[in-house]
Amino acid sequence: MMHPKSISPLYTDLYQLTMGQAYFLSGRHEQAACFDYFFRKIPFDGGYVIFAGLGDLLPLVENLRFHEEDLRFLQRSDFHPDYLDYLREFRFKGEITGMQEGEIVFPVAPILRVEGSLLETQLVETLLLNVLNFQSLIATKANRIRHSAGKRALSDFGLRRAQGLGGIMASRAAIIGGFDSTSNVMAARDNDLKAAGTMAHSFIESYDHEKDAFRAYADTFPDDCVLLVDTYNTLKSGLPNAIEIGKELESKGKRLKGVRLDSGDLAYFAKKARAMLNKAGMDYVKIVVSNQLDEHVIKSLLDQKAPIDVFGVGTSMVIGRPDGAIDGVYKLSSSNQMPRLKISENVQKTTLPGKKEVYRYLGDDGCFYADCIVLSGEADPQRMIHPFQKEKSLELKGRPYQKLFVTHMKDGRTVSSPSTPESIREKVGERLMSLPEEHKRFDFPHIYKVGISDSIMGLRDTMVQKLHEYL
Amino acid sequence: MMHPKSISPLYTDLYQLTMGQAYFLSGRHEQAACFDYFFRKIPFDGGYVIFAGLGDLLPLVENLRFHEEDLRFLQRSDFHPDYLDYLREFRFKGEITGMQEGEIVFPVAPILRVEGSLLETQLVETLLLNVLNFQSLIATKANRIRHSAGKRALSDFGLRRAQGLGGIMASRAAIIGGFDSTSNVMAARDNDLKAAGTMAHSFIESYDHEKDAFRAYADTFPDDCVLLVDTYNTLKSGLPNAIEIGKELESKGKRLKGVRLDSGDLAYFAKKARAMLNKAGMDYVKIVVSNQLDEHVIKSLLDQKAPIDVFGVGTSMVIGRPDGAIDGVYKLSSSNQMPRLKISENVQKTTLPGKKEVYRYLGDDGCFYADCIVLSGEADPQRMIHPFQKEKSLELKGRPYQKLFVTHMKDGRTVSSPSTPESIREKVGERLMSLPEEHKRFDFPHIYKVGISDSIMGLRDTMVQKLHEYL
Repeated sequence: MMHPKSISPLYTDLYQLTMGQAYFLSGRHEQAACFDYFFRKIPFDGGYVIFAGLGDLLPLVENLRFHEEDLRFLQRSDFHPDYLDYLREFRFKGEITGMQEGEIVFPVAPILRVEGSLLETQLVETLLLNVLNFQSLIATKANRIRHSAGKRALSDFGLRRAQGLGGIMASRAAIIGGFDSTSNVMAARDNDLKAAGTMAHSFIESYDHEKDAFRAYADTFPDDCVLLVDTYNTLKSGLPNAIEIGKELESKGKRLKGVRLDSGDLAYFAKKARAMLNKAGMDYVKIVVSNQLDEHVIKSLLDQKAPIDVFGVGTSMVIGRPDGAIDGVYKLSSSNQMPRLKISENVQKTTLPGKKEVYRYLGDDGCFYADCIVLSGEADPQRMIHPFQKEKSLELKGRPYQKLFVTHMKDGRTVSSPSTPESIREKVGERLMSLPEEHKRFDFPHIYKVGISDSIMGLRDTMVQKLHEYL
Repeated sequence: MMHPKSISPLYTDLYQLTMGQAYFLSGRHEQAACFDYFFRKIPFDGGYVIFAGLGDLLPLVENLRFHEEDLRFLQRSDFHPDYLDYLREFRFKGEITGMQEGEIVFPVAPILRVEGSLLETQLVETLLLNVLNFQSLIATKANRIRHSAGKRALSDFGLRRAQGLGGIMASRAAIIGGFDSTSNVMAARDNDLKAAGTMAHSFIESYDHEKDAFRAYADTFPDDCVLLVDTYNTLKSGLPNAIEIGKELESKGKRLKGVRLDSGDLAYFAKKARAMLNKAGMDYVKIVVSNQLDEHVIKSLLDQKAPIDVFGVGTSMVIGRPDGAIDGVYKLSSSNQMPRLKISENVQKTTLPGKKEVYRYLGDDGCFYADCIVLSGEADPQRMIHPFQKEKSLELKGRPYQKLFVTHMKDGRTVSSPSTPESIREKVGERLMSLPEEHKRFDFPHIYKVGISDSIMGLRDTMVQKLHEYL
């Protein structure tokens, strides 16, 4: 199995297929529909989310096909033969419009808009949510870790703790979020990334003496040798042996690349290691650390001035701990040429009707100031209203703004050219330069303003009122 | 892409491949080695873990092959041509022994033992950890939810919030842990499971009137119709409309299967819904609830006597919130016929040397009493010692015990016959009947005793002492 460019359309919730049959048998399956993808809550109590996953999603949607084994299973599950005939020829032929991968995104504002027939827009829901929710989660977590690490190198070591085959896409998202490399060789192959790694304790234990293990590795990889120094005793054994092997490499005109610390107090050991290496004239040897790192531990290590060059980050990044999920949803905004909405006991769960896009207004400093959700193609609304508290509005008159929506797929064909995770990472870095610092801090970040235009508010109010009359 | 029976061996950490090259070039790659899979900490502050994932792992290991595209990538990454020739012919030919899938397992005790050449046992590490850590996490979480739900039905609704392709395996593990069905159609197809689902809000919104949507669905699925009643107003619109459609079904000799509540206070609405349905003479209609459920919410709902028949559980189960990972590790216990260990500043991270297995002793009530880690084939040790606190020991003399290890793979071929997730779920249920209640409670569960035999303690002490002399 490779990094998938296609996946069975059965990788979905059953109800997408049963609703599809109900649409089909009542002849409504080709009615026009429009859905929004957005989320409501930023994970990690953070101030922003990095939108990721689109580059993986588009080919999966474009290549969605029901194969015979899929249809046989649906037949055994009592789906209607006419519907199965329709599914046999199914292709997604709709349109996907929205923000670019790597964009900095905020709650409530649509990130993507999916238009097409009722059946096809419904059939892609689960896959879209699965891929985008997860990769955006990981890119966001990775970016928080990048924020703590500054310019120091970050390597993804998470595959063994990834959520099963979730590891296939996690490493891609880690790079988008700001990591430099990954230990995941398949992800490196499929995304043109640098694979990175050091050695395991088992390698060292399999030799009778630590030094023999170090020497064997240095002989094999004289140009890329990072020695793991904590198998027996970091200060008494690991580091002295690594220094000796480093001297042997020097005598061959080579240089030991690094030492890795994987246990104990990393600040204490990094300082000791730096001092021992420098004393041996090996100030060029890098210090790599790993073991239960996250954005908070890294920040603390650097606050303590631990002389660390490379952080290997595993579990916490690759599963997006502690949240583990973004609550992204996919909500109908129009069908059969009519705007649609869901109302809720909880006003924050009432959806925004109509075909929409997002304009990002800039502050006097040129930084991101506020995002306004508008009806698609709407003229600059010049002010926006809080989506759930009508009495709050924000003047936007005369401010420059960016239209954030572009077309990604038209008539079922991807029209945007694919970007590598590394080029998306560059874009993330650039966009973040325009996000004010107060949205980036970890503790109670400032809330970025997202609002709706008067037109959307008017539309929603009218519809809610009509529904209440009807009830 | 299907539920994978094979995966590229590049789905691994780079260091497995670089260490392999170092072994290969120094002629040590075919030395015998033995690794243990175990974990140190139970997730969710719980009292036990359900071992899952083996049924997916074994074919993946058996079918591990380097294909030309894999080798081309490694060649571009400067691996040695002789090593690549070796990898081209690589097959896993080793032995996997250990506990059965569905076993109740505890920290420190080996769950699996992998024996074979140094190279092959190392090359399967990442994949093994990835698959077993994740599925055991999800099966354990699902089982906690089953514990709360009692005999009520549980359906997995998590795919949209699963960690990317992690969703492929999560639904299987959910069933093993105790769920009845899944919304994930691909998982249902590949594991012979029952797919389940209701309808989405979008289905209802796409009609001008809620009742029309209900009727269209009931017409399409008269025998399997669960209506979602909270799109506009649960008590004033959703339930009255559902009752009306239910009456229409009755007039056709059919029965409305259920109503689903997906927002608001689920205890309050479930009671209201039950009363309204009963009043209409429809006490047979089941009440399905969903929305941010986990073991604690379900326990609270049932404590409040909410008349709920089916729980649809999503995010929290499918990502194993809040832990999101089991810290399972894979540690060398012998190589080249010598026992091996890693020592650590932290005594709990010192590994147990030698080829081992696990005996489970039974209490006077026939319940699980204690697990003793012994050397492979060791005679009943009759007492065990705390793995990290020598002064603590437990008498086992005369107690009956079960040998928990069986052979799963020999010479690279699976020898155990595959079990369906549903049959493993039955096994879990049976085994749990022998686990005392105090290990099952959520708050500060009693710690199950795991110890080591005198032989293992003696071996470890000797080795630690020798290492300290050498240092």
